Formats: sequence, structure tokens, C-alpha cells
Amino acid sequence: MNKSVVIVGAGLAGCLLAVYLARAGWTVDLRERRGDSRARGHAAGRSINLAISARGLKALRRAGLEETILRNAIRMPGRMIHSRAGAQEFQQYSRDPNHAIQSVSRSALNLALLEAAAAEKNVGITFHQRCVEVAAASGTVIFIDDSTQQPSSVVADLIVGADGAYSAMRGIMQKNEGFDYSQEWLSHGYKEMQIQPVTSGAHTPFAMNPNALHIWPRGASMMIALPNPDGSFTCTLFWPHSGSGSFTEISGAANGRAHFQRDYADALPFMPTFDADFDANPVGSMLTVRCNPWSQGGRVVLLGDAAHAIVPFFGQGANASFEDCESLTDALAAHGDNIAAAISAYELDRKRNADAIAEMALTNFVEMRDKTASRAFKWKKKLEHFLHGVAPKFFIPRYDMVSFSTIPYADALQKSHKQDGIRSRLVIFFLCCISVGLWAALSNHQSSIFVYTCIFVGLFISFMWSATRNK
Amino acid sequence: MNKSVVIVGAGLAGCLLAVYLARAGWTVDLRERRGDSRARGHAAGRSINLAISARGLKALRRAGLEETILRNAIRMPGRMIHSRAGAQEFQQYSRDPNHAIQSVSRSALNLALLEAAAAEKNVGITFHQRCVEVAAASGTVIFIDDSTQQPSSVVADLIVGADGAYSAMRGIMQKNEGFDYSQEWLSHGYKEMQIQPVTSGAHTPFAMNPNALHIWPRGASMMIALPNPDGSFTCTLFWPHSGSGSFTEISGAANGRAHFQRDYADALPFMPTFDADFDANPVGSMLTVRCNPWSQGGRVVLLGDAAHAIVPFFGQGANASFEDCESLTDALAAHGDNIAAAISAYELDRKRNADAIAEMALTNFVEMRDKTASRAFKWKKKLEHFLHGVAPKFFIPRYDMVSFSTIPYADALQKSHKQDGIRSRLVIFFLCCISVGLWAALSNHQSSIFVYTCIFVGLFISFMWSATRNK
Repeated sequence: MNKSVVIVGAGLAGCLLAVYLARAGWTVDLRERRGDSRARGHAAGRSINLAISARGLKALRRAGLEETILRNAIRMPGRMIHSRAGAQEFQQYSRDPNHAIQSVSRSALNLALLEAAAAEKNVGITFHQRCVEVAAASGTVIFIDDSTQQPSSVVADLIVGADGAYSAMRGIMQKNEGFDYSQEWLSHGYKEMQIQPVTSGAHTPFAMNPNALHIWPRGASMMIALPNPDGSFTCTLFWPHSGSGSFTEISGAANGRAHFQRDYADALPFMPTFDADFDANPVGSMLTVRCNPWSQGGRVVLLGDAAHAIVPFFGQGANASFEDCESLTDALAAHGDNIAAAISAYELDRKRNADAIAEMALTNFVEMRDKTASRAFKWKKKLEHFLHGVAPKFFIPRYDMVSFSTIPYADALQKSHKQDGIRSRLVIFFLCCISVGLWAALSNHQSSIFVYTCIFVGLFISFMWSATRNK
Repeated sequence: MNKSVVIVGAGLAGCLLAVYLARAGWTVDLRERRGDSRARGHAAGRSINLAISARGLKALRRAGLEETILRNAIRMPGRMIHSRAGAQEFQQYSRDPNHAIQSVSRSALNLALLEAAAAEKNVGITFHQRCVEVAAASGTVIFIDDSTQQPSSVVADLIVGADGAYSAMRGIMQKNEGFDYSQEWLSHGYKEMQIQPVTSGAHTPFAMNPNALHIWPRGASMMIALPNPDGSFTCTLFWPHSGSGSFTEISGAANGRAHFQRDYADALPFMPTFDADFDANPVGSMLTVRCNPWSQGGRVVLLGDAAHAIVPFFGQGANASFEDCESLTDALAAHGDNIAAAISAYELDRKRNADAIAEMALTNFVEMRDKTASRAFKWKKKLEHFLHGVAPKFFIPRYDMVSFSTIPYADALQKSHKQDGIRSRLVIFFLCCISVGLWAALSNHQSSIFVYTCIFVGLFISFMWSATRNK
């Protein structure tokens, strides 16, 4: 066995895949369009963080990196909801208080993965390599070195496009007949802001509880904040691009500050760099990319954001990409010399799951920015946790399935639809029970209770039966 | 008024728009990636034809070209359905026998439009011009001359991308944030074949009735044929790319011939070049392209297939593109100096109609290849024509609205959904009436007839009411 792979893109997924495949005996040629991030050391300036949960940790564990990453991670076992008045309310994510998502620095994670890849003796890494052409039939990729403008050509048994949401590899494949593709932009943009560490006289550098993902839900918009080890929080504003309450409408630090006074007043005192951040930081856009097939000629294959860019609202982008790496590695191991068959198995496994998490990530935006603030949402979550306690295998809340399990995303989506039906029917059932109980108590018709109980048990069974069948 | 426009693409839509805008006083710079088709004269070899209907004729009339085009067109007032056994059945498209779609040569149509554009004194046409860059802010387009490799740069008030389904202009716009885009390929491909003119002893050179669009509906696949003035027919096979009955399965002239013996036996005798055609002609692919917005910076705008490539099954591709030209011209006239406002008005008018015809074109494939062969379809059409006769304004069959009217596509789609409901309810109503009539006649309950009639009239009214409300 002496197989070679070219991986285009040394981001999170590209590096992890390089580690996996190198350890499985592959000769790995890892090419990155940008420069070497190791030269810059840990990213200076603003910290950008992301949430890693069960799926990501499992994949990192497999590469022996879980401990390294968790050393600088901050546990977030729940959401902290900030009201306009400044009240904070903690909502635990799971019934189990040990379940937490982890806030980690994106650049530190990428650096750890790049160093792990570089430490493998059969991994070669080259930077400033822009992918310009792919010939699936011959397994050839052509790169141009952006510092020297020299082209180079590589031939490999397997070619992986792990070059992110704006993938050059996918752009090339898009010209193929039969390549279905869609890019859909969100009407909301984002802007990053900073909450600074507290410097004077406090016992902690954190201006707010660090063990939570902070959310300021404001209906059509929201701000979130994730903690960093240095005591700062990275905040992200999610506002519409245009229209009422948009980045277009609220432009310039003065307008931004006025808007913050109204909607995010409790955060403003901890943002000494507000004016500079608001004016200098760009408004980013978010998109969902779907394509099919993910491969070409049984030799070229897309992975991670290149295959399925998703919006960030379930914190699953990196997690999903890491699962791709595991799936492709396992498929290649299972199919031995037949790379085309391995790619087919990988696509069959991952495409449906990528579609499911893309859908759930879009749905979760509405939940975060709007529903988390409502009393109904709180009771819904409490009921879900209760049901999960009563029947831990039968009923698992969607958030738990996505963040604290490795149940395939598509199965989680389907199961949660089914559970939604059950939950709604249970609520109706209990309301009926209470009405009957009240009626019986008030009217002294003690003898009728048995009859009505029978009727409602019958109703309950048929409700549950229809719930499990219809969804 | 001295405004300038660059039109990228001298295809059907690009040329027609050039004529319209030149006559409205614009200076038109028309650039085409291919060579000058006038140099080749009328296309030799295979004739490719397309169907022009009311919308296209209206647009051509406006340019004074209707008569020229109709001179070499062949009327097709209906479909001719060919059974496996070789039986032919004519289905008139409209209740009105004067309604016909027109089979015209694509290359002749393009040539006539190109000549009309060239005849305008403020139109300049340049060939071999590949569009490589667009800067909306400055109104600059950069082309590379494919024969000399020299770049050239043009500045204009308005830039129109009319460069077809694989539009280079759209490819450039796709990289913009906020540009939603999807390309969806059909699982069926197509291959063109020829039915040759009859040469010996016949009074007509046509092997079949020339005044019909011939269809061989075979469930999952089909063949169609459109007449050419020289007595030949251009046939198009629509088969799946892969799987049962696909181009992959039936490859090579010998297999093709065996398949034809079974499915298209009556056409085979008129195809003396069958083996050569089947082996030499490529299998094409078809796609639907949707994007939004169609414009950038109030100055760059897409039109025709570049904005909305559709599958060919309603024969509306060219017709829809010609309507785009009319709409953009009208919007520019209405908004005077405000080009950005004109572009907005054009998009508002055309985007919803493009989406509607894209959907109807996909639906019509199933109708053509599968339903046209069924008895139920025939009766459905007869009922539609009857209803159209009874209430010509209230009930207009979808085919009539799309092909023989200029009702906006989106309105036609919505109205036809509503009508489907009415038609289904009418069928149920008449079946009920017949049952009641039979029951009354058989049981001699003469006195009850009045009661039941009242009930059914009530049912009828509520049916009709719900039909008009729900869709």
C-alpha cells in the first residue's frame, strides 16, 4: 500500500484529514492558498472563537488532540439570555449538567491541527498554492504559487477539495455537466465586537459568567458572545443587511452606540473599544452552499465547507467537517484499493447529513434570536428535559442529539420532527386532563371520572400513535 | 439623450435588444464570443429548430421581423401522438384551430436578428469577444479578443449580460456576496436525430404530417420531431442519462436501432442516416438556472437564458427571452435617465415570470413524455376546451395561456392552479349528477329528484367557491 492524496486547503478539515490519512499509510501532499500561520504564532489582536461539541471532540480524540484543545477551551453548559433591562437568565442546554459545548479559539485550533499534520512524516505542506485546474481522469491538479507565480502540477490517487466555503475546487467542478449547485445568502450579516477583560479589583477577569453562551435575543436581530481564556468575550452582532434595524440603517459608531443603549445596554460598559470596533470591523455575509455530487471521476472529492457551507447558528460547521474526515477515512479503509467505491460510500453517508445540519442551522437562527426570550420556549425546553429524563432513549431533545451525541444529523432531524409531534400531543393531553379534573371536582360528578379517564387514555394512545406514524 | 449600452452576447435575445435600444436612441456596443455567423451563411448540415409562439411573435413584430420569420416557419396547431404500434393521433393545442406554434430554424432566426441589429446605424458588433471582467461601479467591461488575445475595455451607462445559459457575466456576478444562485441538471439528456425528406414519387417531401409537433411518448422517455421547410424533421430523443432505457445503457448504433425497432418503429424507415446520427451526435444535458438579483450596482443586468435558463419542454426559452427584451426596453423608456430604477422595474416584472415558466417547463416534460399517451389526458383536454368555449375569459387552458396569449407567466401559472381545482370539482359534480339521475330513474322516486338536485346545486356552489379560494 503506497497511495497518495493531494489535499487542497490546510484549514480545520484539511489538516485533520491529513493526520488521519498519513497515519493510515497515505502519502499526503497538503496545499494551502494562504501563508503559513505558524510563522505568525498565535493570532494577535482579535480572538475569533467557535463552539466544539461531541462530534468535534470525538474526531479530535481520534487524532490524539482532544486534551490539547480542551486545555484552552471554556465550558458552556447553557445559554445566558440577556433581556433589554439587563436581567440575565441561565438556560441549561441539556438535562445533564455535565453536557457542555466548548468555546475554543479558531486560530489556536487550526494551529494545533496544522502542527499535528506537520509532525507526520508522510505529510508535506506547501503554502501560497492556488488551485487552478483539476483533471479527474488523470488525477492531476495544477497550482499556481502566489508568491512566485510559478505553476506546478501534482498527480495523486485521490484529490480532496477541503478549501472552504468559497472553494476553488468546487468552482472548477461547477462547470461540469450534471453538477447541481446552489448558493443561498442570508438576509442577515454579522459584525464582530469585543467585550474586554475586567482589569481592576475583580476576582475574575470575566465581565460576565464565562460558562455560558451569551445571547441578547431581540426578535429579528441578536447579539451573541463566547468567552475567551484571557477574560474577553468575542461578540457577534447578527443584524439584517438592509431595512429596519439593519447595518445599512445603523451605520457609524454614534448610531451604533445609540442602538446599543436601547438593545444591548448591559454589554456596552464592558466594550471600551466600541467605537473603533464598530467603525473598523467589516460586515460579513453568511451563505448556505449545497451541491451534488460531491465527487468527480471516482477520484476527486469535496469535504467540509467546500461541500456544504452552512450558517453558524448551531455551532456545527467545524463539527460537521470533522465528521466528514472520519467518514472519508473509514470509507477508504473499508474499501481498500477501490477509491471510487470509498468516495461513493462517503457521499452516501455524508450528503444527507450535511443537508440536515444545513436545515437545522437555518432553523436555529430563528430560535436563538427570537424564541429563546419567550416563556413558552423555556417551558418547552423544561418539558423536553423532563421527557428525556423519563424516557432517555425514546425522547432526546434536538439540541442534545446535535451537540451531545453523534447520532447522524439526518436521523436527529427526523427523530426531532417525530418528537415535536409527540410533545405537542402531550401538551394537549395534559390540558384536557386538567380540564376534566377541574370539571369533575367542581361539579361533584365523582362517578363520571372513571368514564372520562378512559376516554382520555384512549385519546392519548391514539395521539401518540398518530404522532409516531405521521412524521 | 445619448446613452450607451454594452450587450454581451449576440444570440437571439442580445440581437433583439440591440435593435430595440438602437431604435430608442441608444448607442449599442454588441459583443459576441463566437465568430460571425453571417460569414458561414445559413447553417449547413443539420437543422436545429425551435417553436415560436404568441409572445415571441409579438416581440418580433415590434422589431418588424414577424413577417420575415413566418415566411420560413411551419405552423403546428397540435401534437401528433405516435403509439408503439405506429398509430398516429392528432391533438389540437387549442379550441381555436387558428392557434398554432411555429417551427422555425434557430440559426435562420439568429441570422435574421443579427442582420437586423447590424442594419441599425448606432449598433456596432464585434466578434470573438470573451467577457472576463465587469466593474459595476465604473460601468467597465473587459473583453479578451479570442483571435488576437488582445484585451479591450469598454465603459457604458448600461451593461447587459445576454450571454446564455453558461453566461460568463453571471459567472462573474456569482462571486458577489448576496448573489443567490442555483443550477439544477435534469436527469435526462437529449440527442438529435434526423428524419429525411421523401425524395421519390411523393406529392410532398414530408414523411409525416408537417403541421404538428410529433411526440412518441414512452413513459420515462420520449422522442419529439419538429418539421423543417426542406421536408426533413429534426427529432430529439429525451432519455435518462443513466439507468434503464438510458443513453449509457443504449449506446452504439446497433443497440439504438434495436431500441428504435421496439419504441419508435414507425420513424425508423424515414431515418436513412440513423446509424451515423446515433453514433456521431453528442448527448446533451439540460439545466435550470435561477439567480437573484439579476443586476448589480444599478448598471449591470442579466437577460434571457443568462438570467433564467430553463428546460425546453414548453418551447418557451426564446419566447421568454424576447419578453425580457421588451420589458427592459419599456422600463428604460419609462424611467428616462434613471437606469437603476429601470433595472429594478424590469427585475420586478420578469423574475417572478421567469420562475413560473421554469416550473411549468419542468412539469410539461412529464406531461409530454407520459400523460399525452393516456385516454384521461385526452378527455381532460377536451373538457378544458369545452370550458374555454363556455367561459372564454374565465377558463383558459394553461397551454393556451402560455403559448397563445401574453398573460404574464406567473399569472398563467396561478390561474391554471385555480382552474385545475375547478375542473376536478366539475368532474366530481357531474359524476354525482349522473349517479343521482340513474338512481332516480331506476327507483322511480320522481318526487325526490327536486330535493337531490337542490343538494347537488348547493354542493356545486361550495365546490366552486372553495376551488377559487384555496389555490
